Amino acid sequence: MTEIAADPSHPRYQSLLMRHRLEEAEKKGMLAGSALIAHGRGEAFDYLLGEQTIPSALRATQQALALLSSAKRPVISLNGNVVALAGKEVLHLAHQLKCPVEINIFYRTPERMKALLGHLNEIKLQEKLDVEILGAEPDARIPGLEGPRANCTKQGIFESDVLLVPLEDGDRCEALVAMGKTVLVIDLNPLSRTARMASVTIIDELSRVITNMNEMLLSGAATKPVENYQNAQTIEEAFTHIASFLSSEG
Amino acid sequence: MTEIAADPSHPRYQSLLMRHRLEEAEKKGMLAGSALIAHGRGEAFDYLLGEQTIPSALRATQQALALLSSAKRPVISLNGNVVALAGKEVLHLAHQLKCPVEINIFYRTPERMKALLGHLNEIKLQEKLDVEILGAEPDARIPGLEGPRANCTKQGIFESDVLLVPLEDGDRCEALVAMGKTVLVIDLNPLSRTARMASVTIIDELSRVITNMNEMLLSGAATKPVENYQNAQTIEEAFTHIASFLSSEG
Repeated sequence: MTEIAADPSHPRYQSLLMRHRLEEAEKKGMLAGSALIAHGRGEAFDYLLGEQTIPSALRATQQALALLSSAKRPVISLNGNVVALAGKEVLHLAHQLKCPVEINIFYRTPERMKALLGHLNEIKLQEKLDVEILGAEPDARIPGLEGPRANCTKQGIFESDVLLVPLEDGDRCEALVAMGKTVLVIDLNPLSRTARMASVTIIDELSRVITNMNEMLLSGAATKPVENYQNAQTIEEAFTHIASFLSSEG
Repeated sequence: MTEIAADPSHPRYQSLLMRHRLEEAEKKGMLAGSALIAHGRGEAFDYLLGEQTIPSALRATQQALALLSSAKRPVISLNGNVVALAGKEVLHLAHQLKCPVEINIFYRTPERMKALLGHLNEIKLQEKLDVEILGAEPDARIPGLEGPRANCTKQGIFESDVLLVPLEDGDRCEALVAMGKTVLVIDLNPLSRTARMASVTIIDELSRVITNMNEMLLSGAATKPVENYQNAQTIEEAFTHIASFLSSEG
């Protein structure tokens, strides 16, 4: 069991809190077998970023938020790790954006879907949020994918124009881009296929990103698109940041 | 369940094989709760190394092997992930080096110890290896550590002069160095405290390192120490490799 430091100013507080949330989610049956390994990979990349939101990631966050705010049919896609790590924060974001969320998991079983829906509905009730939670009854398929992972809802992901898909796998990101959607991803690995495929790539830790988005919306200041936004430059700047972090340590 | 590619030439074969071994170990109760996250962090750093043994890591491996070969009381310390990922390879190494192994785990419970001992003894029997497996009955303590994690055996770790401690935590590495031991570590994160504290730091994936050591011993060629070995240079070269990998991708 991960012990959470009592003091939020503890330097490992955020990181230990995220592990604690994953352990709780594991107990509830929300996670796939690969969830913890995937989280560990993220931790390593976050470590190389200095566990902070770098300036290029903040610009990408603002750009993504502007695209979501001006979308006709924005949707936020959720997998097990997203619900575990930032379920509450994501529902607050969806409430502010007045957009639905859709549970869309790679390893779909009735038990996992039930655990995820139960967890989200509990938060929604506690926080008094008005958010539509889709995904329980898929009635459409993402072209180019096989098996249960292609499932989605017509009303949600299938007919969306702008999609926020945090912690997405490369295949599905590619398939969504191929459908002509604007795909916004949150991925700590700047080398991943997801990072390369997306319309906007936020190279930052999930809970920091969603918190930043919620604060930007509350402040009302940051729903303007970034001037001349170039996603390749966002990725390039993450590489540069990590390389200079490594050389300063070496 | 991780599917292992049938063909060992598949580019993801080694990585999927390691995940498969962890899942099997998890089922047997060999792993701590943090094991999979730690493995994921390692995967990310290995990815940045190009999933290969870089030249400086091979030199560090040769240096470590030379120190083990010429030691008076060499010992290989094993934790849950080491047993899971490379139990067989490590026992072959200990057999060739004629040195004991000692199970020395951070989160010590009777159940985990039993599972780990059972797994190692099974391999020992199958592979017909002559290796002493210590750790079941600790009768000494590592100074400077608190609680069960300080436990070790007098005959093994406590009186060793040269210790190979793969995937070690920073506190314990530091405590072993403070005891005056030559501490050889295998750690994919060149920034970790373990990497910084050790006498020799092999920045490479565990099963590749042990396989390299076994092959070096079998070939009989590589038990000479490396001329003017500098551990700081080993770490520096890992940084340089990762930084140039990132800039070639960027």
